[in-house]
Amino acid sequence: MMLCFENDYSEGAHEEVLKRLIETNMEQLPGYGTDRYSGQAKEKIRKACGCPDADIYFLTGGTQTNQTVISAMLDSNEGVAAAETGHISTHEAGAIECTGHKVLTIPQKDGKLPAERLEAYLRTFYADENHEHMVFPGMVYISHPTEYGTLYTRGELAQLSEVCARYHIPLYLDGARLSYGLAADGTDVSLKDVAEYCDVFYIGGTKTGALCGEAVVFPNGNAPRHFVTKIKQRGALLAKGRLTGVQFDALFTDDLYLRAGRNAIETAKALKKAFQEKGYEFYIDSPTNQIFVVLIDEQAERLKEHVVFSFWEKPDDAHTVVRFATSWATKMEDVERMEKFL
Amino acid sequence: MMLCFENDYSEGAHEEVLKRLIETNMEQLPGYGTDRYSGQAKEKIRKACGCPDADIYFLTGGTQTNQTVISAMLDSNEGVAAAETGHISTHEAGAIECTGHKVLTIPQKDGKLPAERLEAYLRTFYADENHEHMVFPGMVYISHPTEYGTLYTRGELAQLSEVCARYHIPLYLDGARLSYGLAADGTDVSLKDVAEYCDVFYIGGTKTGALCGEAVVFPNGNAPRHFVTKIKQRGALLAKGRLTGVQFDALFTDDLYLRAGRNAIETAKALKKAFQEKGYEFYIDSPTNQIFVVLIDEQAERLKEHVVFSFWEKPDDAHTVVRFATSWATKMEDVERMEKFL
Amino acid sequence: MMLCFENDYSEGAHEEVLKRLIETNMEQLPGYGTDRYSGQAKEKIRKACGCPDADIYFLTGGTQTNQTVISAMLDSNEGVAAAETGHISTHEAGAIECTGHKVLTIPQKDGKLPAERLEAYLRTFYADENHEHMVFPGMVYISHPTEYGTLYTRGELAQLSEVCARYHIPLYLDGARLSYGLAADGTDVSLKDVAEYCDVFYIGGTKTGALCGEAVVFPNGNAPRHFVTKIKQRGALLAKGRLTGVQFDALFTDDLYLRAGRNAIETAKALKKAFQEKGYEFYIDSPTNQIFVVLIDEQAERLKEHVVFSFWEKPDDAHTVVRFATSWATKMEDVERMEKFL
Amino acid sequence: MMLCFENDYSEGAHEEVLKRLIETNMEQLPGYGTDRYSGQAKEKIRKACGCPDADIYFLTGGTQTNQTVISAMLDSNEGVAAAETGHISTHEAGAIECTGHKVLTIPQKDGKLPAERLEAYLRTFYADENHEHMVFPGMVYISHPTEYGTLYTRGELAQLSEVCARYHIPLYLDGARLSYGLAADGTDVSLKDVAEYCDVFYIGGTKTGALCGEAVVFPNGNAPRHFVTKIKQRGALLAKGRLTGVQFDALFTDDLYLRAGRNAIETAKALKKAFQEKGYEFYIDSPTNQIFVVLIDEQAERLKEHVVFSFWEKPDDAHTVVRFATSWATKMEDVERMEKFL
Repeated sequence: MMLCFENDYSEGAHEEVLKRLIETNMEQLPGYGTDRYSGQAKEKIRKACGCPDADIYFLTGGTQTNQTVISAMLDSNEGVAAAETGHISTHEAGAIECTGHKVLTIPQKDGKLPAERLEAYLRTFYADENHEHMVFPGMVYISHPTEYGTLYTRGELAQLSEVCARYHIPLYLDGARLSYGLAADGTDVSLKDVAEYCDVFYIGGTKTGALCGEAVVFPNGNAPRHFVTKIKQRGALLAKGRLTGVQFDALFTDDLYLRAGRNAIETAKALKKAFQEKGYEFYIDSPTNQIFVVLIDEQAERLKEHVVFSFWEKPDDAHTVVRFATSWATKMEDVERMEKFL
Repeated sequence: MMLCFENDYSEGAHEEVLKRLIETNMEQLPGYGTDRYSGQAKEKIRKACGCPDADIYFLTGGTQTNQTVISAMLDSNEGVAAAETGHISTHEAGAIECTGHKVLTIPQKDGKLPAERLEAYLRTFYADENHEHMVFPGMVYISHPTEYGTLYTRGELAQLSEVCARYHIPLYLDGARLSYGLAADGTDVSLKDVAEYCDVFYIGGTKTGALCGEAVVFPNGNAPRHFVTKIKQRGALLAKGRLTGVQFDALFTDDLYLRAGRNAIETAKALKKAFQEKGYEFYIDSPTNQIFVVLIDEQAERLKEHVVFSFWEKPDDAHTVVRFATSWATKMEDVERMEKFL
Repeated sequence: MMLCFENDYSEGAHEEVLKRLIETNMEQLPGYGTDRYSGQAKEKIRKACGCPDADIYFLTGGTQTNQTVISAMLDSNEGVAAAETGHISTHEAGAIECTGHKVLTIPQKDGKLPAERLEAYLRTFYADENHEHMVFPGMVYISHPTEYGTLYTRGELAQLSEVCARYHIPLYLDGARLSYGLAADGTDVSLKDVAEYCDVFYIGGTKTGALCGEAVVFPNGNAPRHFVTKIKQRGALLAKGRLTGVQFDALFTDDLYLRAGRNAIETAKALKKAFQEKGYEFYIDSPTNQIFVVLIDEQAERLKEHVVFSFWEKPDDAHTVVRFATSWATKMEDVERMEKFL
Repeated sequence: MMLCFENDYSEGAHEEVLKRLIETNMEQLPGYGTDRYSGQAKEKIRKACGCPDADIYFLTGGTQTNQTVISAMLDSNEGVAAAETGHISTHEAGAIECTGHKVLTIPQKDGKLPAERLEAYLRTFYADENHEHMVFPGMVYISHPTEYGTLYTRGELAQLSEVCARYHIPLYLDGARLSYGLAADGTDVSLKDVAEYCDVFYIGGTKTGALCGEAVVFPNGNAPRHFVTKIKQRGALLAKGRLTGVQFDALFTDDLYLRAGRNAIETAKALKKAFQEKGYEFYIDSPTNQIFVVLIDEQAERLKEHVVFSFWEKPDDAHTVVRFATSWATKMEDVERMEKFL
């Protein structure tokens, strides 16, 4: 059988998540997220974030969450600033523009949006005599981990937060893979830090053992007015809100969210070590669950016979950058089998 | 414990659906609906519809599906015609308008859009000298069962289809509760009829034993160009497409979809009989799983102590119209317990 | 030569307006409404409205103005309430929906939106348990004169204003034909009243002697943030802002706006009298510049040979409702010539 | 009195345009562009373009025109490709995104979009395995002259046209300053060439002697369906369509459009010569009516006392790039007065 390191959403639900879905399956619960499990899950997330007043909402997927949150928080003349490699800038099929808002791109560094570049962008914008004819930056979008698997430091988040506060625009963090960032070796960023430095963020479930589901957190009870209606309007309100509620309840019980993240990190480290020992070149140094490797095209062809992985880009005619992803579900024995093919 | 006839999405998944989710849970499958279970499910649905060339897509919820399908099929100067009581006209928080399109309302009859009224509307529109300054009707929306639980006859669907064809606009059927329509006593409308008379429709999963999921069917392979991208753009593309694929595979195995519908009909009939025998007045004669009863306010107050049901409207100061819903999950013993409170 | 009572925008500019355009034509002026004539015009309008702090903006046409103002003032989950016959509800090609917002229609009375109906609508909305799944009413739209040429009384405006204030939603008045309302016999509504009772309104130029142009007034300096950018974003910001500035400067010099309105009223009265004397039936009693007459179809055919007028609707097989409009440009001698054909 | 080279829309209308407005002012004409002058103007433009079957529409301003044309021609999953310096990319306040479509930016060269870069972009897009999750390029936008006053050669237009045809996407040319491009020295691009190589373009009136107005040309009768309704929906349909019709009729009588352009070119050449003789450095070599000069900051300050010009950008702490614009209205004597200040 083929090995699969294609992405971090290849399996269904983490067993502890699935167990809770099964146990609660036939309970009769009210709809649209008003059930007790959704309530419980929110309480646990508030505690994990250190934000007793946080407003929390469960949505289904990442693009949907970005679209719903960003469109709800921008004024009609505003756009959202993001790294040019940000997921909303590239791979969400124009989901932000489709709500009427521009994504204002800023050059990235290691997949991140550096605070200095953001500050320079904002300063230049307001200095431009013509800025009334331009899209106003009304929000800043970052992802942690980034699309390249890299992580902000706490200092970097603090700086971004400070720049945003100075310009009175909210900082939004896309945490599709947040568990893998929080569980990474050497990071100094905790969930509480995220909640402290961001005005809104989401905790990704889909990529960490949920069948679907993302938890949007407004740490200071600062959700937009009538946010439920705005969620409904985007087609993002599940009738069976229990589906996300129960899953997040499980993910935030006994630290499952971090444990699930940790499995991805351990297996990624082992996989990375295997590549290193065989002398493979990394495209970028990622401390999380995504490993970007530069392969000679023949290597790529050969590996494809045994392993599923993702194409990333073609830097030149002879090489290919590819991505190997681990997850909450990756087995160490699969990493060991993989070593033999390197 | 309280009895619950509040709606048809109070429980989780039908046991046969859940079983398939559990069995397939740890399989490694490709994302975004390209997995084998999604493929299998589509094949079974094609067969059930009698449409070997149908294009089929799985989305998550009803409002999302309406929004995605309608916005993808309308030209920018077009709106969608619907009964004034249509779900898109009233209870979807403006999800259609939010994509830039008007819902053009036509007076309903028993919750249905009569072909004559549709024809009169279209004729009048094109006769108006000013119609270039008006929103063009570019699609017709109906639901089956309707929001009042009523059903079109095959003849009525044929007539609507004929009017639409004459004016070159597609007919779209919202089948959020389609299983309950197909399983109703006395209906002459089969799934194949729906597929024959509609240009596009969806088969509701959420209300028939899925945790979430709706199957959009373009019977003649007539999906809009790049429809996957359009789904993605609306935030409606699940990374774990397996979630809906596996569930619809189960729902279309051994006629589960109809069996699930049938349970709702049998229990609704028993409940209706109980109301009738006690002399309750029905607000509308519904052959499906929703029963609308006119209660004296004191009756309503008393029943509330034992049963959960939905408020519908207040026809006058002394009465309340309420709705009791059965579903695939309703137990006949609960209906029997209910009788004691009438 | 044919007589023409087709509408109130058949001629170009009023001679006093044209004169000012000619006089200022070769002056070098800054763009985008920052020229001195725009400034002067705003000052004169502030004075005429009795609102020294009003924010004023010049746009080009009525639909554009409605679209820009309404979309700038609504939150994304909100719609605008209007009479079902309101111009935005019917003849603006979906310009409001195209910005993502629903027009919430309320039954009209003589073309007007009665305060009681508005209040009942708002009360019912908030009483509905499901209103979180519905479009929130975020603004109220009226027109004065209405599409039927009828007028609100000061008392009616005060009532509407009071209901809006109670529900914290702004009242917006479309004044495409405001001059004809202000100049009507028997009205007790002055421009200052409009400014007092409305949160925003526009003074129509196109139909009162300007080549194009509408003046949006926020009486209390309550324009939305960055409204210039929002105007630009809708493609509604003229490079040569002087075009509207100079014209409104002329219209608000020596009461031209009212004088122009008065000519339409005088000629309409004469025309109405002529119809009355010949026993014609009016469709509605309009005190302004639009006269709606019920013609027997043969009468309509005969009149068409001599006069241009507008088709309105067909109440039955033998009759036609048509509209005759006078304007700032209508000559009394044309009314006299008209009498001969009745 | 201050000299003014601030832009090319400082004056009102060209005298020949104004004359026609005056002559036709009191004629009673039908509305919304159905008048005889609009018809005549279209016929003259068809002749000038060599396109007897062209569909032609008059709109009011450039941003409005770009917004209306682009949104009407794109499918909902498509964006418009443009140079990163394109006007729609930068200075239209998000007017394109506001209709739901992304502007896909490609690096510019001398303000232009080179065919090779466009081709590389399109090739890469379709080669990307993930392109179903990305915004499809559905149109190409260029401007001629560009925002830097530069011009495409006929060969370059032909190449762009060929690339677009190969990928089945229309080529759209923004001709806000087209007259200045057509009248430039050394250009080999005629109006007929523009019509041959583009699928749609507009001829700018506002910057060439009209009070307002842009003429959209679909050379092959290929206007989108119901384009009038789409114009109306964007608030872009003038009730007094005569205003643009009469002006374009004048602009295309006796080659006024080219004569007006030629005046700007002659005066720009004289002004450029004056700068050159005094040793000023140009920021870019522009053959049209915009001259970009690099000033030492003190020079800029000194000049400001006598002349109005536009700030462009600040390349470093000691210099400023500024723009001097001539137009149809620029007098040679003003250029001569200007020389004294250099």
